[in-house]
Amino acid sequence: MQKGVFITFEGIDGVGKSTQARMLKEALIAKGIEVLLTFEPGATNIGRAIRQVLLNVASKEMAYQTEILLYAADRAQHVKEVIKPTLELGITVISDRYIDSSIAYQGYGLGWDRQSIIEINDWASGGIKPDITFCLDLEPQKALLRTKGDRIESRTLEYHNRVRQGFQAIAEQEPERFHLIPATGSANAIHQKILAILEKRMGLK
Amino acid sequence: MQKGVFITFEGIDGVGKSTQARMLKEALIAKGIEVLLTFEPGATNIGRAIRQVLLNVASKEMAYQTEILLYAADRAQHVKEVIKPTLELGITVISDRYIDSSIAYQGYGLGWDRQSIIEINDWASGGIKPDITFCLDLEPQKALLRTKGDRIESRTLEYHNRVRQGFQAIAEQEPERFHLIPATGSANAIHQKILAILEKRMGLK
Repeated sequence: MQKGVFITFEGIDGVGKSTQARMLKEALIAKGIEVLLTFEPGATNIGRAIRQVLLNVASKEMAYQTEILLYAADRAQHVKEVIKPTLELGITVISDRYIDSSIAYQGYGLGWDRQSIIEINDWASGGIKPDITFCLDLEPQKALLRTKGDRIESRTLEYHNRVRQGFQAIAEQEPERFHLIPATGSANAIHQKILAILEKRMGLK
Repeated sequence: MQKGVFITFEGIDGVGKSTQARMLKEALIAKGIEVLLTFEPGATNIGRAIRQVLLNVASKEMAYQTEILLYAADRAQHVKEVIKPTLELGITVISDRYIDSSIAYQGYGLGWDRQSIIEINDWASGGIKPDITFCLDLEPQKALLRTKGDRIESRTLEYHNRVRQGFQAIAEQEPERFHLIPATGSANAIHQKILAILEKRMGLK
């Protein structure tokens, strides 16, 4: 059996990733393609418990290694329980965030040891990489207007600018996989751009 | 200021580590040495939350990478909040379990990727290693009689035999640091052996 296609959505908070992920799921299902929509962090029971540790107020003094390891732990469980078995059934998986988020947020945004983040996440995920990634790109000033405050979102605008630059850097490093999509115009206009790239790259009609 | 001495206790469950760690703490304090006694996993607020994830019944289907990463996350926080700042104040730290436990339990006991466990924990701990380690050694048949059941302790006797062999292998690899102490005889007899090694190796009188 052919493996399912693994599609991820990336981008800073408030940029409309979840909406686009849902719209793509519905469009693929309408074409008769089996699709599972999932997300990070916290898609599994174990992941939900890990996410609570990450979001807890007591986490303000968290060691940077701890934060990196907890996101990777959530991801390892997500891959084992959800992503890998679903792809093996030939079902397309769409994930709202994946490894690129750790690289952009923790590596570029917070300035932590990028090579270690990449190595730990490669190991945590068993080397499972997205076939194609859509990253919605927008100035943080505009994107953050749409978000509500929590520990991550209360970090500075400069931080989100660095995260955005991180995603842009990944796009330069992996242009075949990682597609920056300007998150301007209507949700449907953005959706059409994504569909067009997917048809061209993956042969999905 | 001179850094504190970092002492760890290791061994399989039920072998009397915690008792010996407490006895050593009291003996050192009686000699006028400042000592902090700590433990893994779960010595910090964040670590306690991580430990809950590890011990939860829902964790039965935990990916092996997730388990390794969660123990390492707990350790990173323990080092940052407790071990490193205390050693830097010149205070001796005694920890009931540390990295060797991950190597013995997850690497030797469960047969998981030992090199990755070592690398991840070296990174998580910022390279902070014990100056000296006492590993209490006893047949699992005898040690397990003393323990109560939880997720880890309900694992098989063969598993605990492999863990014990793991500790024995570490002792062969690092004879200067890692001291196997037969956990037979009275607690006080074991304590005296530990004190004698410590005096000889560390000059603590």
